[in-house]
Amino acid sequence: MADGNALDGLTQALRRLPGVGAKSAARMAFHLLQHDTQGALEIARALEHAVNHVRHCTQCNTLTEQEVCVTCQNPQRDRSKLCVVETPADQAAMERTLAYKGLYFVLMGKLSPLDGIGPQDIGLQQLFDRVAPRDAAGQLQPAQLHEVQEVILATNFTAEGEATAHVIAQGLKSRGVQVTRLARGVPVGSELEYVDLGTIAHALVDRR
Amino acid sequence: MADGNALDGLTQALRRLPGVGAKSAARMAFHLLQHDTQGALEIARALEHAVNHVRHCTQCNTLTEQEVCVTCQNPQRDRSKLCVVETPADQAAMERTLAYKGLYFVLMGKLSPLDGIGPQDIGLQQLFDRVAPRDAAGQLQPAQLHEVQEVILATNFTAEGEATAHVIAQGLKSRGVQVTRLARGVPVGSELEYVDLGTIAHALVDRR
Repeated sequence: MADGNALDGLTQALRRLPGVGAKSAARMAFHLLQHDTQGALEIARALEHAVNHVRHCTQCNTLTEQEVCVTCQNPQRDRSKLCVVETPADQAAMERTLAYKGLYFVLMGKLSPLDGIGPQDIGLQQLFDRVAPRDAAGQLQPAQLHEVQEVILATNFTAEGEATAHVIAQGLKSRGVQVTRLARGVPVGSELEYVDLGTIAHALVDRR
Repeated sequence: MADGNALDGLTQALRRLPGVGAKSAARMAFHLLQHDTQGALEIARALEHAVNHVRHCTQCNTLTEQEVCVTCQNPQRDRSKLCVVETPADQAAMERTLAYKGLYFVLMGKLSPLDGIGPQDIGLQQLFDRVAPRDAAGQLQPAQLHEVQEVILATNFTAEGEATAHVIAQGLKSRGVQVTRLARGVPVGSELEYVDLGTIAHALVDRR
């Protein structure tokens, strides 16, 4: 290896990207410096701009540049439904279905005791306060006064996502809020022979 | 997806990294903004620093911050041997073997007609001038006056790497320079049963 402290430094820095190891980072650094310095500067500017301007929407907790994000501001949205997702990418997947017109709450993570991520590390309290607000005297509003009438849990169907959904469901039901979960079942276009048994069992139980 | 123009902009910018698609870029952007803004700023600074400070070594063409890189400056190096590699990563692999004490020439690419990369796009002319320099009258020096007595071709054993090695060998032999190529053969630790036929055939022809 030549000296290239700047090259080594860049390689080290790029390893902080998730899913990028030593070889990928070296390949990225080489590519950018040899073939795409314009791209390198563009990435640098985008990173700085994003870090300095992006913050959390006060309504739905997603990343935005405004106080309240565009989705939450949209008057066309059904404000009586609130879909809880883990990340902005999950929200984007829901949006692409064009099947949902309500609002969102983005947890920005999931409960993960093994990684030391508890209820206080994701937006659970903010979610509870949003759905079941307290009046001036600090008392919980009766459920019929809630703006949000249904909370749809759309966390991932992984162990952590299911645990997160369970904790949210417990907390909201104790506050008198209607909570639903995305249906588990056989994916569209799949053949039963190749679907895992747990999915078929769930699809059988949830048959309609 | 929320608005987040800065988030979208960052995701778009990260897609310029080699091997990073839309989903990886979105995951990287989310990770950096949610969990590692410090890392994001570090990457931005490393990119800017590298773009502004890294240039090509005038001797070996690798990326460095100095006029001549540390390897080329090292008086312990055997200046009569010159190993030609495609990238700084290949040079680093050679160095890790601790088996080579000569100098390097880094092409910073390989001939690749399908990608429109011809001899003038990689450092071929610079390599020829380095190995077989001309005197003040523009005449090629006789080979016995050359500082470099042997050029070892260590381009990759791919179609492009082999073609690159072939072109370099032709050019240097016509200038009276001794040219060798890394041996092809059976990898250390491998069982013949699982080695591809081309490799075994080469190992048989090059037996010693």
